[in-house]
Amino acid sequence: MNAEIIAVGSELLLGQIVNTNARFLSQQLAVLGINVYYHTVVGDNPDRLKSAIEIAEQRSNLIIFTGGLGPTKDDLTKETIARHIGKNLVMDQTALESIEHYFKKTNRIMTENNRKQALVLEGSKILPNDHGMAPGMVVEGDGIIYMLLPGPPKEMEPMFSQYGANAISLQYDAKEKIVSRVLRFFGIGEAALETEIIDLIDNQSNPTIAPLAGDSEVTLRLTAKHIDPDSANTMLDEVEKAINKRVGKFFYGYDNTSLMKELTKCLKNKNLTLAAAESLTGGLFQEELTGIPGASSVLKGGVVCYSPEVKQQVLGVKQETIEKYGVVSEQCAIELAENAAGLISTDIGISFTGVAGPDELEGKPVGTVYIGIAIKGRPTIVEKLNLGGTRAANRIRSVKFGCYFLLRYLKESQNAN
Amino acid sequence: MNAEIIAVGSELLLGQIVNTNARFLSQQLAVLGINVYYHTVVGDNPDRLKSAIEIAEQRSNLIIFTGGLGPTKDDLTKETIARHIGKNLVMDQTALESIEHYFKKTNRIMTENNRKQALVLEGSKILPNDHGMAPGMVVEGDGIIYMLLPGPPKEMEPMFSQYGANAISLQYDAKEKIVSRVLRFFGIGEAALETEIIDLIDNQSNPTIAPLAGDSEVTLRLTAKHIDPDSANTMLDEVEKAINKRVGKFFYGYDNTSLMKELTKCLKNKNLTLAAAESLTGGLFQEELTGIPGASSVLKGGVVCYSPEVKQQVLGVKQETIEKYGVVSEQCAIELAENAAGLISTDIGISFTGVAGPDELEGKPVGTVYIGIAIKGRPTIVEKLNLGGTRAANRIRSVKFGCYFLLRYLKESQNAN
Repeated sequence: MNAEIIAVGSELLLGQIVNTNARFLSQQLAVLGINVYYHTVVGDNPDRLKSAIEIAEQRSNLIIFTGGLGPTKDDLTKETIARHIGKNLVMDQTALESIEHYFKKTNRIMTENNRKQALVLEGSKILPNDHGMAPGMVVEGDGIIYMLLPGPPKEMEPMFSQYGANAISLQYDAKEKIVSRVLRFFGIGEAALETEIIDLIDNQSNPTIAPLAGDSEVTLRLTAKHIDPDSANTMLDEVEKAINKRVGKFFYGYDNTSLMKELTKCLKNKNLTLAAAESLTGGLFQEELTGIPGASSVLKGGVVCYSPEVKQQVLGVKQETIEKYGVVSEQCAIELAENAAGLISTDIGISFTGVAGPDELEGKPVGTVYIGIAIKGRPTIVEKLNLGGTRAANRIRSVKFGCYFLLRYLKESQNAN
Repeated sequence: MNAEIIAVGSELLLGQIVNTNARFLSQQLAVLGINVYYHTVVGDNPDRLKSAIEIAEQRSNLIIFTGGLGPTKDDLTKETIARHIGKNLVMDQTALESIEHYFKKTNRIMTENNRKQALVLEGSKILPNDHGMAPGMVVEGDGIIYMLLPGPPKEMEPMFSQYGANAISLQYDAKEKIVSRVLRFFGIGEAALETEIIDLIDNQSNPTIAPLAGDSEVTLRLTAKHIDPDSANTMLDEVEKAINKRVGKFFYGYDNTSLMKELTKCLKNKNLTLAAAESLTGGLFQEELTGIPGASSVLKGGVVCYSPEVKQQVLGVKQETIEKYGVVSEQCAIELAENAAGLISTDIGISFTGVAGPDELEGKPVGTVYIGIAIKGRPTIVEKLNLGGTRAANRIRSVKFGCYFLLRYLKESQNAN
C-alpha cells in the first residue's frame, strides 16, 4: 500500500504554520508498514484541491487529507471529495449530538454553520473527534482509501492514533508487521557513533539501523519486519545488544524519553532530593525538571544566581573565591553546588556557571562551563565543558550535560556499592 | 508568477524531520508578492522526483527545490534536473575552492565525493553557501525558473535571504513592491479582536489585514502593495492607526518582538533591576529573560521556590500565611514578590504561585495563578488568573501574563508621573 498525505490550507502556503501533521502521519504510517511516497500541500481552493486529488489517485492507494473540515466557507475538503467521487453528504446524528454537547460543555452558543461540521460522506466510517467538533471519516472508492482528518494537531493526532490507524489496518491486511525501537545516545557525535557500527549498518537490511542527530543527541532507529511481532522484537533485541556492546556507555534510554526524564526517574527511585544553583543556564535546568509532572518529590527548589552578588549574598560563595578564581571556575561551581544543597536542605546540589555568550567573561572564552555536583557524604565533583556554540545552544547543552553527569555519578555509586 | 516548493528527502517522508523549509520559503515568497500554490515532498528517488518535476512544470513557473545537494549517492536533485532539462553538470571553480577552504578551516580531510558538491548546472547562476558546502543555483529553461537550495535550514535560510530572493527579483520584474508589518497583541482573544475590526478587514484589500492566533497571543499581518515602498509604508501607518484606535490597549509591539523583549527594553531604559520568585513556573520566567543577551543588567537573580519549605526558609514567607491562606494565594504572592526583591536587593520583585496541573492543589482548580509585583516605594499588586489549560500551557501563559502586567504597571506609573 502506497500512501500520500494531502494537507489542505492556505495558511500553510503562506508560511503561517508548519506542516507537522505530515510528519506525525508519516511516522505512524511507517509503523504500520505503509510506504509514504509524497506529501502535498494545497490551498483552500476547490479546483486546485481537485487537481491534487486526481494526481494522488494516479500514484497512491491511500490518500489522507488533513484540514478543511471546519465550519466556515473556506473549509471545503469533504465537499470537494464528495463531488469528485460522486458521494452525497449526509447528516451524522452522533456527530451532531457530539457538537451540540461540545457547545453546552464550553458554554458557547452554537451557530448554524457548526451543523455543517456534522455532514459526512455517505457510506463512510466515522472517526470520532474527542478533542474538537469535526468528525473524521474513511471511505473507499475504486480501490482507493480516502481518509479525512481535521487540521488542528491536537484533534488530528489523537483521532488518528485512537481510530484512524485501526480503520486502515482493517482495510489493509499487512502480512509483515513492522516494529520500531529508538535508542538514544548522549556524549558521542553522529559521525563517531556511525563509525563504530558502520559494518552493522551496512551489512543488514532487516532490521535496519538509521542514525539521526539532533539537539546534541544521536538516536538510532531500529526497524524490523516479520509476520510475527514477537519475532520482530527478538530481532531488535539482538541488534540492540550488538550495538550496545560497542557504544553502550553512551546509551541512555528508549523512544521518547529524555535525559531529564531519566534523571527524575532515577532520583525518585533512590528517594533523593535536589537543589540547583543556576548562573549561565538562568533557570533552564529547573524549568525543564519542573515541566515533568511529579517533579515536586525530586526538586525542592533552587537559586538563579545570575549576578555575582546573588552568588555571594544568597548562596554564600566566598568573596575571595570570586576574586581569586572568578565566577567561571571550578571553585565557584563547588561552593554553589554545596551551598545550594545546604540552603535548601536537600541530598544533592547541582550548579551551572559559565560563559553563555555572545561575549567572553573573565577572559574565558564563550562556551566555558563548570558543572558542580555535591552529593551528601561524597566528594563534590566538577566537570568542565568547552562548548563554543551559540548562547542558546550553550545553555541547552549545559543542562543536558548536567543531567548526564549526575545520572552517571548516581549510577557509578550504585555499581560501586 | 506562481511558485511551487519541492522538498527532496526520504527523511521527510519517514517523519524524521518536519518541512520547516517550506514554511520559511513561503513566508519569503509572500513578501516578494509571489503566489505559492503547492508544496510537494518527494523521497530520494530519481523516478519519483522526475515525475514531481513534470507535474510542477504544468502548474508553476518558479520551482524551488530544497535538499539532495549533499555528497552521498542518495543526493540526486541536480543530477535529476540536469538530465530532465538537458543541461550538463560542470565543475564550478569558486565553489570547489570554497569547499576546500571549508575543510581546511574545520581541520577535516576532504574526500573525493565532496568534489561532487562543486558540480553545478551549466549556465546557472550560483548562490554561494556561507554556512556549508553545497552551493545553490538558479537556471531558466522554457520560461520556468528552477532554483536549487541545500536542505539544512541553517544553510538554506541565509542563502535564500542573501542571494536567492535577489536572483528571483532579477528574473521577475515586479512592478509593485510588497511591504508587510506585524502588529502583536496580548490580553485579547482572536475572535474578540476580529470582531472589533471586522469592518476594517472586510472593507479593504490593500492593505490586507490577516489575523493569526498562537501562543496566547494574536497578531495582525498588514500587507500593502505599491510601486513606491514609502507609499506602501504610509498606507500601513494609516491602517495601523485605525486599528489601534480600537484595540490599541492590547497592542504591545511589532514583528519579531516578544513581551519579554519589550519588558527587558523597558527595564533597561528605566535602569531598574529585577528579582523573581517562581513556584509553578519553575524558572521559566528567568530562563526566558536570561535568554535575551544583555539580561544581566536587568535580572540579578531569583529563587525557584517549588516546595513550601523553600518559600519559608529561603524567601521568608510566614508560616501563618501558608497555614491560613495556602501557598496558592494573594498573600503568599505578595510576600514572595516583596521578599525576593529584599533578599536580592533589587528595585522590583515578581512572583508566580499557582496550580500548573495536572492535579488541583489546596482545593484550588488547575490554572489558578497569582502573580505578585512589588516595586520599591509603591503598593504591591497581585493579579489573579484562571487559566485552566494544560500544565505546559499554564506555565507559558503565566510567564506572558507576568511580563504583561509588569509592563503595564511600569507604563501606568510613567503616565501618572
